[in-house]
Formats: sequence, structure tokens, C-alpha cells
Amino acid sequence: MANTANTANTANTADVGAGPAGLQDVRETNLGLVLRAVRALAPCSRAAVAAATGLTKTTVSSLVADLISRGLLRETGESAERRVGRPGVMLALDHRTIAAIGVEVNVDYLAVVAVDLLERDLVTRHLPFDARAAGPDACARRIAEAVRSVAADPALRDRAVIGVGVGVPGLVDSPTGTVTRAPNLGWAHTPLRARLTELLAGPPDAASGGAAAPPVLVDNDANLGAVAEYRSGHRARTRDLVYLTGEVGIGAGVLVGGELLRGSSGFAGEIGHTRMVEDGPACGCGRRGCLEALAGVEAVLRAALPDRFPGGALTRADLADLVSAAVERAEAGDPVAVAALRRAGGWLGRGAALLVNLLNPGAVVLGGYFVPLAPWLLPACRAAVRDLAFAPDAAGCVVEPSVLGLSAAARGGAMAMVDALEGGRLPLPAPRAAVPAAGG
Amino acid sequence: MANTANTANTANTADVGAGPAGLQDVRETNLGLVLRAVRALAPCSRAAVAAATGLTKTTVSSLVADLISRGLLRETGESAERRVGRPGVMLALDHRTIAAIGVEVNVDYLAVVAVDLLERDLVTRHLPFDARAAGPDACARRIAEAVRSVAADPALRDRAVIGVGVGVPGLVDSPTGTVTRAPNLGWAHTPLRARLTELLAGPPDAASGGAAAPPVLVDNDANLGAVAEYRSGHRARTRDLVYLTGEVGIGAGVLVGGELLRGSSGFAGEIGHTRMVEDGPACGCGRRGCLEALAGVEAVLRAALPDRFPGGALTRADLADLVSAAVERAEAGDPVAVAALRRAGGWLGRGAALLVNLLNPGAVVLGGYFVPLAPWLLPACRAAVRDLAFAPDAAGCVVEPSVLGLSAAARGGAMAMVDALEGGRLPLPAPRAAVPAAGG
Repeated sequence: MANTANTANTANTADVGAGPAGLQDVRETNLGLVLRAVRALAPCSRAAVAAATGLTKTTVSSLVADLISRGLLRETGESAERRVGRPGVMLALDHRTIAAIGVEVNVDYLAVVAVDLLERDLVTRHLPFDARAAGPDACARRIAEAVRSVAADPALRDRAVIGVGVGVPGLVDSPTGTVTRAPNLGWAHTPLRARLTELLAGPPDAASGGAAAPPVLVDNDANLGAVAEYRSGHRARTRDLVYLTGEVGIGAGVLVGGELLRGSSGFAGEIGHTRMVEDGPACGCGRRGCLEALAGVEAVLRAALPDRFPGGALTRADLADLVSAAVERAEAGDPVAVAALRRAGGWLGRGAALLVNLLNPGAVVLGGYFVPLAPWLLPACRAAVRDLAFAPDAAGCVVEPSVLGLSAAARGGAMAMVDALEGGRLPLPAPRAAVPAAGG
Repeated sequence: MANTANTANTANTADVGAGPAGLQDVRETNLGLVLRAVRALAPCSRAAVAAATGLTKTTVSSLVADLISRGLLRETGESAERRVGRPGVMLALDHRTIAAIGVEVNVDYLAVVAVDLLERDLVTRHLPFDARAAGPDACARRIAEAVRSVAADPALRDRAVIGVGVGVPGLVDSPTGTVTRAPNLGWAHTPLRARLTELLAGPPDAASGGAAAPPVLVDNDANLGAVAEYRSGHRARTRDLVYLTGEVGIGAGVLVGGELLRGSSGFAGEIGHTRMVEDGPACGCGRRGCLEALAGVEAVLRAALPDRFPGGALTRADLADLVSAAVERAEAGDPVAVAALRRAGGWLGRGAALLVNLLNPGAVVLGGYFVPLAPWLLPACRAAVRDLAFAPDAAGCVVEPSVLGLSAAARGGAMAMVDALEGGRLPLPAPRAAVPAAGG
């Protein structure tokens, strides 16, 4: 598979935020700064980049030449507005040369997405897969196989894969890429990044001892969903935003001022395990009365389709089908399904009100399987938010379904790699040709 | 009262965080940067300040001269370690010239604190006052009177008051200093900053039309309590920290990465109005079953001392006395008091677990009247956190009583003004003498 030059900096890829570069090389940081400026301003001149970044024109010209040689920027020809003297050559991101891959692991499926530097989808795949039954090692092998397959897709021909971002529903120690605890998958202390890095490395080679794997980031699925919402959702650029995953579990990805809220050990956002009632239904975490035991998708389906759970157990292939069945029944006005969805919507609203009171976000976005169920969940959900928010009118917070479907976290995983590249936290692709002369 | 030169920048004093200075004057920002460097390094040379800030030695010398003329820095004599050539003159903060005043408004008292530039207490006053009965205008007049009285205290002789930071238990629109909603005070849409600014201005004067008031900041009391905990509490510099106010109401001041979490409209932290149970006891906000209706100090006292609430009503003088009475009974082993405190501790722990799950803080600090009650609240509180936190061992979060007593928010209000001065968001005191020659 196409690959980047080295993986020396991958220990920092966990830092999806846009914070200071710390000990990173200043030049890498500045290269990223120029990339970000061009993303925001393109088409734009080198002079405009210098003005926006505060770097000198000479420095910008050198950095631009470097980025062009690495296939990340391109010149788009002359400016429409001609000036006195040499016409300004305009710059844009070069969307033809790299790809970032994102993967979302869920109880019942893997989603895999590849995006280009403009964060446009190159490939999107939804792969039914029983991660719970497979166990962590088989799951890592299935992920690696899916990533290789996407990397070999014609849409990625001649592209360097800058990295792979993987979202997992559970507590993730993102700096090491270890899944600390994911009860819905039955995983604990799973070193997923290490395993994937091993699996994605090329076959041994006498000269180098084997091709290096692309940098791998493992993060909480809700965090990556929030990244995708912030970068490309309906409420994109809402700086205080919460993304709620709608799967068997419910997790929150929280953006505060446009940055992921991680907390002191990276475990923030576990709203699904808020106790809502004493002696409530059993939760996958071993407690009772948690929000996800009341309003997680499995709980909702059990209540909406009581006849479909004769044995009590749920297998992976069921979930998507059962959601469709619940939608059908609700559309037909089935009172049991409608009442179950309304009840779940009320619980979700109580959870959302808690987010509003504690975090005061501008938007709460419902993702995953909550999206098809939203027409029946949302009225009760919004009513509960209105009733329970302390600030008048919930301080203007909107509650909306995601427009990113079941691949939000996968897309966010890919975008997190693009963000890491721009933040100087990923190795840049190797130069592809001689560095051209610096332009004006 | 001693005062600063002008109040042109007070609209920005709401921004207590250490973010970028935005449109502020670069020189004011750099003056603040030098102040912060000296605070961290003192005693230190100009060269050390240049190294720490990235400013040139010439710039640092000019800024230091300016700060010395304004009475914010002083030279402390020669360095202990002599170097080749001229011995380095060391710098320190000048703690003799300014004061910052903080005020905390509560249902039953005002706390007023003045600190110097080193954030050491100059004056601390606890003034019983029935803010609920007085109404907002009488309360503003009482605050202004208290501020004038503290400013006239011998401990503040010859000091310029750089600003007044006021904490209020409720939703505060900090940029305008308006109290949007404070149900426990019975206030709504109270323009407290405007009123205080009016009241603190000097008497009319033919030449200038009246002396300017010091800059006034109004913020949520829990936010200011968190500032104080971060700057001087037992868990100082814990970057992810939650301070819980222990008054009639319960509010959370949340620090994320050392910055106050404000949310999209500044209303974050209202944990007191999380619904914990359906059909629970009535809350001051008009709803039922809120955390503060179960574990707020008034609720706790009603349960612990049922015989002391014959008529049901609570007047301001009662609260401190009743807390003492509850402590006495609990110490004597009174089963009703002990059980009530244990129950409240359990509810507090459920609230703290929610904070742990959602925010993953390093510490949750219980403030106000929770401090004297902590010996009976904490065991059940900590047990609930252990039981309900999703991350193993609550991800290392400690739950502790504050060491700052009933004046945490007042102290935080004063510190927020010092922080604003250092952040370039407050006018600096006027130069007091001719600018001395820049030192080495």
C-alpha cells in the first residue's frame, strides 16, 4: 500500500486538537500553518498566505515550494486580477496525491472511509461485522484487511495514505492507542494501535526489515464523530457542540471552543453511563439505570419490537434490520413502537438537558441509528430539553439529527489524520520530485 | 478611593481565561506577558524574562521600565550568583502598590476580599446579609458600600484598586455583567455591573464630570470559586478541575485545561439543576428533583434538623447557625442528622460521578458550607463516585473539601482581576514617576 516516509511522530497523532506544537519541529509546524492558510483562503497568492500567517514572504515561498514538491499544494495558474508587474500565481490544496483513512468499529458493523486532502469522500464502505463475537484480535485483523482493501481501491491509486484513524465505542487511552474499556465490545486493555501497526506493516524485506505501517490513531468513536460534525456536518464550525453516538451505546464527543474535551486522562464524554433512575434496566457496563440502558438503540428496539426478541439475545446482523423494522412500524402508527420511541426520546432529552446545563453547547447532534429514528425521538427529546434546561430557551441550543449517517466516526477518523498532518503532528509525504524554484 | 487611570477596556474584563488578546494593544499584552513571566520566575533577571517570553532583551528592558514606573515590578538588588561583568539586577512583582477586590454575593452573606499583586489576602470580610430579601438594587448598594469600606481599609492605603470581581449564584452574561437568572436570589435580568459601576464612580466634579469607577467584572460564583481553587487551593494548578459551590444552590465552576469552561453563551456549569429523580422535592428553579433540592445546603439542613424548620421558611441569619447546629448534632451522633448528611453525600456523589463521566476532571472540590459538613458527606459521596464512574478508579479523580472556606468565590473574583491585568484586558495603573533608565 502507498505509504508515508516515516512514522517517527506517530506517538503524537493522538492529539487531534489544534494546540501548540510543543517539541515538534518548527518547520513542520510552519508547513502545516501554510496548509491551513491555503485551505482557508484558496485560491490565494503566496503574499496572502504570508499576511495570514505572519511568516515572511521568503519563508512562505520556501515552505510552499516544499509543499508543492510533496504533492500537498499546487499552483492554479494566474490570478484573475492582474497587478502591476508579474501576475500573482495562485495556490490551492492538491487533492490528487494523498488519502486519509478512517474506520469506525461498532457492535454490528465496521465503517471505512477514505478522504482526500479536501476531506471529500473517495471511498465509503459499510461492512456488517460482529465485533462483539469476533473478539479484539479478529477485529483488528478485519480492520487491517478492510484498510488494505480500501487503500487498493482504484480511487486511491497513486495516493500516499497519510494515516488511519480508528474510532472505538469505549474508553480509549489515545496517546498509546489502547482501548481501556469497551463493555459493548467486551474489550478491556486492548492495545489496538500496536496490533494494527503490526498488521498494516508490509511484508518483511531483506533491506529494510519491512515497510513501515501508516501512522495509526485510535480514539473514542464519539470524539471522532464530533470532529466530523465540526468539519463537515450541518452545524459545522459550531465551536461548542456535542455529538451523541446512537448505537448500542451512547457516547458524547464534546467540542469546547472548537477543541475536543478530553479531560485529565482522555476519558471525557461518557454520558451513556449516567444513572438516570434507581433500579433501572441492566446496562452493559454492569450497573443499572444508565442512560444507554434506557435510550441506547438496543434498549429502544427491545421496547419498540418486543416480539422480535424472543430469546432475549441480539446478534449483530439484527441491529440494522431491526431499526428498519422499528421505522416501518412507527410509520404505520404501531402504538407500541411509537410509545417506545417517545419514551426513549424523553430519556435522550433528559441526557441532552444535562449537557445543556453543564456544557451550554450551541448544538447537540444525534448520530448513528438515532438518525432514522429521529422523527419519533425528537419531539419528546426537544420537549424534555426545553423543560429541564435551566437557561431560558436552553440558551439557544439546537438538537438535530446528524447528516453524516452511520459513517460519522469513520469520516472523523480520516479527518483527524488530515488535521494531524496540518498540525505538524504527522510525517509529511516524501518529496516526489526536485524542489521547484520558489515562486513569487 | 484609589483608582486606575481609565476604564476603556472594561468590556473585556469578562474574559477571565488566558486566551489570545484579540484586538488588545500588543504592548499591553506584552506588558502582561512580562508580568506573568516574573510571577513564575521571580526573582529573575531581564535576560531570563527575555528567554521565557521570546521577546528581545531590548523590548523586555523597555517593558520592565514601564512596569516599574507603574509600580507593578521592582528591582530586588543584585543577584546572588555574580557573573562576569555587571551583576544582574533581579526583578520581582511589586506587591505594595495595587489591590484587587473580590465580592461574593450569597443568599445569606456577602464575602469581600482584597488581594495584592501576589494574590495574598490584604482584607477578608464576611458580612451577613439577606440578599434574597434585599432585592438587587439594595444588594448593589450594599456591595458598593462594602467595596468602598474595604478600599478605605488601612491595608489598602496608597494602593490603586485595579478592579472589582463579583460572583453571583446564577446565570451571568459576563460580557455585559448582567445577571440573567438567579432564582435563589429572586433576580432576573439584573444589570449588576452597570449599577455597580455607577455606584462606585466618585462624586460629580466640575472638571471631569466625576471620577471613573474601577473596572467591574460580574461572573458566576462557581466560576470564580474555580479560579481561586486553580490559583491557590489545595489542588492548585490541577488543569481539569471542578469546584462545586455549597450554598443554598449548587453550581459547578469547570476548568478544562486550566481555562474556564463557559459554553456558547457563558451559562455552563449548572449542575444543580440536573434532574436526579422524578417527582423529587421542589427546587428554587420551579422544577422538582434537581440536585440542589436534594443536596443543596438548605435541603440538607431541613432533613438534618427537622425540628428547626417549624414554619418551613428559612431566613438569612439561620443558615450559618444551622450549619453549626448540624455539625454539632452529627458530632454527637444524632441519627437523624447523620443519616440526612449521608443521604445528601450520596446525591452529591451521584452528581460528582456525572462530572467524572462527562468531564474526566483530576479533582472535584466541594466548597462553601459543604466544607464543615464534609466529614459526614464525603464517605457516601466518594462511595457513589466509585460505584458510578465508568472509568476504572474514577480515572484518578479525587473528591476533596476546599481549603478556601466561605470566601473562595470572593477571592476568585479578586484573582480574576489580577489575571485580567496580566492578560492585557485591564488598564494598567498610571505611571507614578519618571520612567527610570532601562536596566541590564
